[in-house]
Amino acid sequence: MVLLVHHSISPQSRKARIMMAEKKVLFVLKQEEPWNMSKDIQKLNPAKDLPIFIFDGHIISGDYAVTEYLEENYTTPKLLTGDNLHRAEIRRLCDWFDKKFYNEVYKYIVGEKIFKRFSSGQSPDSKVLKAGTNNLKFHMEYLDWLAERNNYLTGLEFSLADVAAAAHLSILDYLGDIDWENYKNAKLWYSKIKSRPSFKDILKDTIKGVPASKNYQNLDF
Amino acid sequence: MVLLVHHSISPQSRKARIMMAEKKVLFVLKQEEPWNMSKDIQKLNPAKDLPIFIFDGHIISGDYAVTEYLEENYTTPKLLTGDNLHRAEIRRLCDWFDKKFYNEVYKYIVGEKIFKRFSSGQSPDSKVLKAGTNNLKFHMEYLDWLAERNNYLTGLEFSLADVAAAAHLSILDYLGDIDWENYKNAKLWYSKIKSRPSFKDILKDTIKGVPASKNYQNLDF
Repeated sequence: MVLLVHHSISPQSRKARIMMAEKKVLFVLKQEEPWNMSKDIQKLNPAKDLPIFIFDGHIISGDYAVTEYLEENYTTPKLLTGDNLHRAEIRRLCDWFDKKFYNEVYKYIVGEKIFKRFSSGQSPDSKVLKAGTNNLKFHMEYLDWLAERNNYLTGLEFSLADVAAAAHLSILDYLGDIDWENYKNAKLWYSKIKSRPSFKDILKDTIKGVPASKNYQNLDF
Repeated sequence: MVLLVHHSISPQSRKARIMMAEKKVLFVLKQEEPWNMSKDIQKLNPAKDLPIFIFDGHIISGDYAVTEYLEENYTTPKLLTGDNLHRAEIRRLCDWFDKKFYNEVYKYIVGEKIFKRFSSGQSPDSKVLKAGTNNLKFHMEYLDWLAERNNYLTGLEFSLADVAAAAHLSILDYLGDIDWENYKNAKLWYSKIKSRPSFKDILKDTIKGVPASKNYQNLDF
């Protein structure tokens, strides 16, 4: 049995869940609040980040290790597709979302709205939120540009780049921060992602005390 | 011909250089200041980070894509060694240095001493430096603990985890921030790394306007 310690607000956790659903890995989820991680879970992963993938007494933790382990170990379907150069482009886009989007959008918006509230009880700083919203516009334009050129972000086939992007976007969408009408190509891309069986579980996610935006679950949004 | 756009202060660039030297890839370096990146280089990589790996008209940018491309394309010697689980442990430690160490030590110390100085001309904030130095102690204890258990960080063999750790540590060592005498196991590990032919070029690095610490180049430090 495979156990994934995760949280709905963690894009790296969503990425692992979508990967496993694509690859039809059976797994059990254990939700753990990143702002209030239990001592037991901290012992499993000294870096104290999510997700943590546990099976047969083995522990794999952290985004890089979990992602590549899932891809190496569950080979059908491949999510790092194509030749060396194509895989490099997929990984470049993963880095784009997992580092650049994370630092420029997630930390500002999700950091203020969720982490700050649940860790200290404080209200969001409107200046920080505004900076995050401005950065989000730039990222949505880039996503829209990528989606205009191809069926999926790196070409005709669905890949890990789509998983990484959707993991991040879906959290901002849960919070109602994405103005899809301004980004028609990105919207079409996201509607394809939302229709995938691997995304069903993500659309059922709830965050305690934070209701999902009106269209979060709707396939026709 | 392979060209690597890099900077001596970029741990991700050092990682790629050590990997290429281990794999005996012939390459030419082009130094680019991360705080003053030219428009031409920005065009090559919209994420605006280093390193950028260029060959035969192809461009691979960002740490994740460059690292995995080098490992996939130049297969001797392997730096992601062993079975799936061992490679997961190597990647967990890469993440440790490339994310945790980077956020908790590099950003504070190198951010204040180098980036702040060269981008705005301001002096380092002593409080931020002190926080970085405190975090460095925790990381040096962890490195010391890892080095005590094994010949290299993930076992008997040299691996990508050693490359990632050494890439980061060597920058802090250049700035004279590491008190090796307090971490005997880490010191023994670093002396082995320093003696590797792949590290020769790293030890000759200079950063304009910032002299290397007294023992930076010494194999017997």
